[in-house]
Amino acid sequence: MCAASHCQRPCGNDSPAPSSSRTGSPFLMTITDTRQSAFPAAEYSERVERLRVRASAKGFDVLVVTDPKNIFYLTGYDAYSYYVPQSMVVPVASDAPVLVLRRQDVPAALWTTHLDEDQILGYGDEYLTGNLHPMEYVAEVLKSLGFGKATIGIEFDGSSFSPRGMHVLEQALADATFADMNRLVEWVRCVKSEREIQVMHEAGRISDHAMETAFDAISLGIAESQVAARTYAALVGGLHGIYGSAPWQPYMSSGQRTNTPHLRWSDEPYRMGRPTMIELGGHRHNYAAGLSRTIFLGRPPADYRSLEGAVVEGLHAALPRLRAGNRAEDVERVWRRTIESRGFEKNYRIGYSIGISFPDTGWVERTISLAPGDRTVLNPGMTIHLMLAVWLDRIGYSLSETFVVGDGQPERLSSLPWELMVK
Amino acid sequence: MCAASHCQRPCGNDSPAPSSSRTGSPFLMTITDTRQSAFPAAEYSERVERLRVRASAKGFDVLVVTDPKNIFYLTGYDAYSYYVPQSMVVPVASDAPVLVLRRQDVPAALWTTHLDEDQILGYGDEYLTGNLHPMEYVAEVLKSLGFGKATIGIEFDGSSFSPRGMHVLEQALADATFADMNRLVEWVRCVKSEREIQVMHEAGRISDHAMETAFDAISLGIAESQVAARTYAALVGGLHGIYGSAPWQPYMSSGQRTNTPHLRWSDEPYRMGRPTMIELGGHRHNYAAGLSRTIFLGRPPADYRSLEGAVVEGLHAALPRLRAGNRAEDVERVWRRTIESRGFEKNYRIGYSIGISFPDTGWVERTISLAPGDRTVLNPGMTIHLMLAVWLDRIGYSLSETFVVGDGQPERLSSLPWELMVK
Repeated sequence: MCAASHCQRPCGNDSPAPSSSRTGSPFLMTITDTRQSAFPAAEYSERVERLRVRASAKGFDVLVVTDPKNIFYLTGYDAYSYYVPQSMVVPVASDAPVLVLRRQDVPAALWTTHLDEDQILGYGDEYLTGNLHPMEYVAEVLKSLGFGKATIGIEFDGSSFSPRGMHVLEQALADATFADMNRLVEWVRCVKSEREIQVMHEAGRISDHAMETAFDAISLGIAESQVAARTYAALVGGLHGIYGSAPWQPYMSSGQRTNTPHLRWSDEPYRMGRPTMIELGGHRHNYAAGLSRTIFLGRPPADYRSLEGAVVEGLHAALPRLRAGNRAEDVERVWRRTIESRGFEKNYRIGYSIGISFPDTGWVERTISLAPGDRTVLNPGMTIHLMLAVWLDRIGYSLSETFVVGDGQPERLSSLPWELMVK
Repeated sequence: MCAASHCQRPCGNDSPAPSSSRTGSPFLMTITDTRQSAFPAAEYSERVERLRVRASAKGFDVLVVTDPKNIFYLTGYDAYSYYVPQSMVVPVASDAPVLVLRRQDVPAALWTTHLDEDQILGYGDEYLTGNLHPMEYVAEVLKSLGFGKATIGIEFDGSSFSPRGMHVLEQALADATFADMNRLVEWVRCVKSEREIQVMHEAGRISDHAMETAFDAISLGIAESQVAARTYAALVGGLHGIYGSAPWQPYMSSGQRTNTPHLRWSDEPYRMGRPTMIELGGHRHNYAAGLSRTIFLGRPPADYRSLEGAVVEGLHAALPRLRAGNRAEDVERVWRRTIESRGFEKNYRIGYSIGISFPDTGWVERTISLAPGDRTVLNPGMTIHLMLAVWLDRIGYSLSETFVVGDGQPERLSSLPWELMVK
């Protein structure tokens, strides 16, 4: 069905279940399942076209997209099979893109994308369990499409593309020229469409629901793991008919362990007089809305309130700068000065572009950073996870959420208060 | 605390919370948190020593380990920060290994490993948000340790190491020689210690609990997403004081979508007369025990029972071959012949080495495959996820679980029946 929650029209076609060439009984099924994608076919075509315009300007003949989030963006392919190499081959001029997967995953592409059957190629397990490498198969595909001597864009610093994969491509296509796409697909992903923003709003509602669930669950003597269990259930079960897709795991830490961002739960019981930092993201059709809050059991000491005050003041100062026309570094500068005036500092970026999230590398888009020296001009429709946690030597305080950049004050994807959550 | 559930001794030391060099108020905390690792320090030292023996035999002077699961194996480092480049530098002769992380993650290494503070180095955000690459920092570390002209083992086909990372190392260390470690750490990981097997048994109990939870939850008209939510809660909440660490997401599909392995839940309601395949893994201290079952609502048709019968017969035939001294391919051959005699075939491997699981690439160890041509001799203490799913054109049947290889019949990590779960 269409990702828009009010829309009941299927975005796919009503073609019957895809078939592959395997043997076995035909099995009479009484119900015929239909293909489902998060967005209509036109949305994916537009994305590919925008990519082609930029790729053409850079002189590429063909692109080999290997990052699973980029493949999802361009096709809707939604199966967690990226632990083996996969590629989307995008001819820049006009021919149809081709998706290369492990053969057993080909039906998953038929279920979740709008691609035609002849756009999906599967390599056999001999490319995984022997001496062959899946990129040899991709090289053959490139040759068969006439790109043996082409200028080929590759994701030189992407997820799921190894030095060996690169080496195999270079060996097999000795007459081709390889050049780094330099995160071209990720840059195309920066500005979200209306449909994407709607999906991210739904993700934001799931984020709020999960944070409130965690807050309700935390109490004296309860183990962190049990709160994590309930938080996961809220992230996946969702609310009001908006269910969650597979989430990036929540970060949770308490007490002195709040001095660093990326720890998770243990079996320790919650205790009075200690803070708990939670960073989580509701996921809707694999789009995430990052959200962090700090929860305090008991009465927070004055010096902790002072840290909270600095962070919230920093947020109020930074937010008006998070608007179209400003540069990424402008937002960080205002934040930095504000918290410095309160005696704190943070030597890390305070936000980044966010959108599609897969577990391989999470939800961070490696394009815009709210950090010194990042002179990217913000545009309407960009989505930014503003990450204002401060980690001190022995304690931390976390506040973050996701915003949509516009011409005025940015749009929130959360409706939770910004203050410390005291219980 | 020690991973052994009956052990109450802390495996770490009782040193106070680690500190870093940041500014800010000291914050008087009434409770001092202590370091925690899954295993005692000696276990990690043994692992590094085994790695060194093999690395020395291959002529390496130093190893640069980039795969987050390999880093976890060698150090216990347990924070999900692998979405940025990280490295463990292991001098082969005798010097202490060094862990290189993003600076904000250094305290997480102090919390979760037995490493000394001077073994943990942090790079600043200028390596992420500007033109620098974290591997330039790693190159400087290698130089400072005297490895500027050394033979350096790298993970040429590993997760989290990009062609650009490789290129940066080569440029910065022009006098060094780089050679592929060829999954050396993963090969060391193949044979599990007694402690690891105990942890995987605990993971197996969580797997069973989660599968039973899913079976209980599935019923006519319930949405798949709500079953997924309860399954996640079971995976994380665990049972009898054994909680789960962050799980790889369950694979779930119903009806004709069972013709492929890697789909997940939707909001579709469960319907009578249709199968549901579930593949999940309880995770304990990041060790997974893979488990798959098929659940059928209503009375299964005869041809589906025939597929079930072939798979279960194949399991019974293969299992006695899954023992020390046999080769990996032997197990697959017996399975293949058995199901062929029943009119089915599967052109994919039927199992692989399993152990540590991180979301970057899941729980598959890329060493042993139960597949034609894999002549690896099985040894006691190897753990194999025997994956006997068969995906036909329009329907599939899934049965899998994790076994410990021994001198006789392999040890099960599950106690669930092998038959179709009918409801």
